Amino acid sequence: MNATTDDTAPVPPFGWLAGAARERASAGLTRVLRPRPHDEDVLDLASNDYLGLARHPRVTEAAAKAARRWGAGATGSRLVTGDTLLHRALEDELADFYGTESALVFSSGYAANLAMVTALSGRGAHLVCDRLNHASLIDAARLAKAAGAHVSLFDHADPGSAARELKTARDRSALERRLVVSDTVFSVDGDLTDLPGLSDACRSAGAALLLDDAHGLGVVGHGGAGALTAAGLRGAEDAVVSVTLSKSLGAQGGAVLGPSCVIRHLVETARTFIFDTGLAPASAGAALEALRLIRADAGLAGRLRDRARALSTGLAAHGLQVSSPDGAVVSVTADSPDACTRWARRCAEKGVRVGCFRPPSVPDGRPRLRLTARADLSPTDIAHAVATVAHCRPDPPLISGRTPL
Amino acid sequence: MNATTDDTAPVPPFGWLAGAARERASAGLTRVLRPRPHDEDVLDLASNDYLGLARHPRVTEAAAKAARRWGAGATGSRLVTGDTLLHRALEDELADFYGTESALVFSSGYAANLAMVTALSGRGAHLVCDRLNHASLIDAARLAKAAGAHVSLFDHADPGSAARELKTARDRSALERRLVVSDTVFSVDGDLTDLPGLSDACRSAGAALLLDDAHGLGVVGHGGAGALTAAGLRGAEDAVVSVTLSKSLGAQGGAVLGPSCVIRHLVETARTFIFDTGLAPASAGAALEALRLIRADAGLAGRLRDRARALSTGLAAHGLQVSSPDGAVVSVTADSPDACTRWARRCAEKGVRVGCFRPPSVPDGRPRLRLTARADLSPTDIAHAVATVAHCRPDPPLISGRTPL
Repeated sequence: MNATTDDTAPVPPFGWLAGAARERASAGLTRVLRPRPHDEDVLDLASNDYLGLARHPRVTEAAAKAARRWGAGATGSRLVTGDTLLHRALEDELADFYGTESALVFSSGYAANLAMVTALSGRGAHLVCDRLNHASLIDAARLAKAAGAHVSLFDHADPGSAARELKTARDRSALERRLVVSDTVFSVDGDLTDLPGLSDACRSAGAALLLDDAHGLGVVGHGGAGALTAAGLRGAEDAVVSVTLSKSLGAQGGAVLGPSCVIRHLVETARTFIFDTGLAPASAGAALEALRLIRADAGLAGRLRDRARALSTGLAAHGLQVSSPDGAVVSVTADSPDACTRWARRCAEKGVRVGCFRPPSVPDGRPRLRLTARADLSPTDIAHAVATVAHCRPDPPLISGRTPL
Repeated sequence: MNATTDDTAPVPPFGWLAGAARERASAGLTRVLRPRPHDEDVLDLASNDYLGLARHPRVTEAAAKAARRWGAGATGSRLVTGDTLLHRALEDELADFYGTESALVFSSGYAANLAMVTALSGRGAHLVCDRLNHASLIDAARLAKAAGAHVSLFDHADPGSAARELKTARDRSALERRLVVSDTVFSVDGDLTDLPGLSDACRSAGAALLLDDAHGLGVVGHGGAGALTAAGLRGAEDAVVSVTLSKSLGAQGGAVLGPSCVIRHLVETARTFIFDTGLAPASAGAALEALRLIRADAGLAGRLRDRARALSTGLAAHGLQVSSPDGAVVSVTADSPDACTRWARRCAEKGVRVGCFRPPSVPDGRPRLRLTARADLSPTDIAHAVATVAHCRPDPPLISGRTPL
């Protein structure tokens, strides 16, 4: 449209949305919500409920009890009326589990990541971010950049590339605040970054390490102690880590863990903490109970990882291009967004739910099925899942053999 | 520090936080979490639980039941496994209450606002934002700007100023996407913007109106139907509105309501929808029950507004500088951040909890006590609150009389 037309007959303000929807459809990127019933009969390999705790009776009872005792909502920002002894108990146990001085709970992992990255950077800071970081870390870096930080990217899971980017920061002004930002376990392919390498790169440069362990908590390391403990970085004073309460803990929310000076700084300055209602007591109570269950059964995480490896091995034996799982996630490459959608739909029709990840949910643009293992999958479940996924593949395989993505 | 020092002896990465904490302390801006017990004996005038529904037995039972029936968490993104018939029921009833075609629930109002503003703007769009918008709308505008939108501000609650800013957009390229963004009821002073005026300005320019009705839902208009219905904009096809589930609905979460084409666009493109775990079932169930309670008692919102006016009138009679409430919020100007903190602390010692809002929680930098009325306050409660706040004022009044802020 041109200005002359506009001056006489404004178009409807949302008229452009129809064209955008057509463009997505022609690219095979239409997304549709399919609400599930509470009692469906399906083998779920799509959720992030890695340990099967979201429906554990002790966890759901803890949620119910917390709602009755503390109310259905937190009623305000944590700094006004939304802070309760229940939130404090959850924070204390999370910090203890990770070996950090302190922890701070948020209403989501997304909010936790926005807080961690923006509050610890600021004007003149240099953020060095893995190219395939989660969307929340990318949005956080965009907000940090808007506030005057410099942002550069390093090659995925490559500490050498991170070290080179850190070096360029030496030519910039605010040498005090250099930060490397990365997922520990990447959500789409389930691959673990090189944490010891990243930590070495940071320490050589006097930089801090900000990590998102959303897919590591309860999954990676002995007893599911998380990726930092597994990498020998438990309680490191130069690292800060975010987690979610909505994956292995089966609830909702997020947290940032680290030195007390960092947590205090977040309490006083992080916008997604100050200007957000506190986490609902039911979610805080459920997450706390789930954490206690994880701590009481040190074998849970190992069983989960065994199941993930069994899924991966089984799928690879069918000639599918499968990732090598470091945690709970197994991804299977699809030929196109459309093929990916059809594949997942066929699996669902056969009673196996798998994730279908297409742009923009895949950082590199390659569509894939995303399967998540759970600690409680039986050998029969795994055999059924492998056979179904292999059988439902819509196109003849163009690539065979197992290639780590 | 200088570059030479840095090359030889890196400072600890979080060493700068101590200085930042000292600066906040010297400005009277230290914030401390004070977790509350579940059974405290206090008159709460600080929460956003405007209708007292967070602890309503039907609401907490709905939360408990939802956790048991659906699980403690949604287990994934709404687009993968996190969508349930419970979420759909909540969305249908919210849309029906607001008279919009559709609604979409998020894990927080913050996430809802980030989604609404970023997904509906994009490269070349022009966002025209009230200067005193909520932090989440400001962050949303920053993200939109990072994606190539142009952002300009208009004078608080001034449709003429918005119209002038919209006019400047005519000289820009993407005439299709002009959007005016505003809170309906502003959270700090509780004042209502001029919605009919803003709508006229938008319609003259072919612009869309994006509104945050977080403090309007359940509070403003007959039966608490919200600010849009009160302003004659119910179901307007050129308006989109966000709400929270954590204030009058007593739970957690947020929602965006509007035409189906808009909601579909958010489902398919909004990053804080696609990349976030779905709202916990307990929160969705609680919000749905609270909404039903509001719809079943058309007098609830009116009683709340009566209580707010009684608070305001009573405080003004003591010579305090008090806002004129359009909804539930009454603000009282304090002389300094320090005075504000001491004032709120004295009130708390006398059993009355009030909010203490200081920068950056006050968009104009002026500290104030923030009192929120509740529908269930008795005349005795109000008299006690007024007397306590007036008695606890730390400094002799410098300004008297009632001045709308």
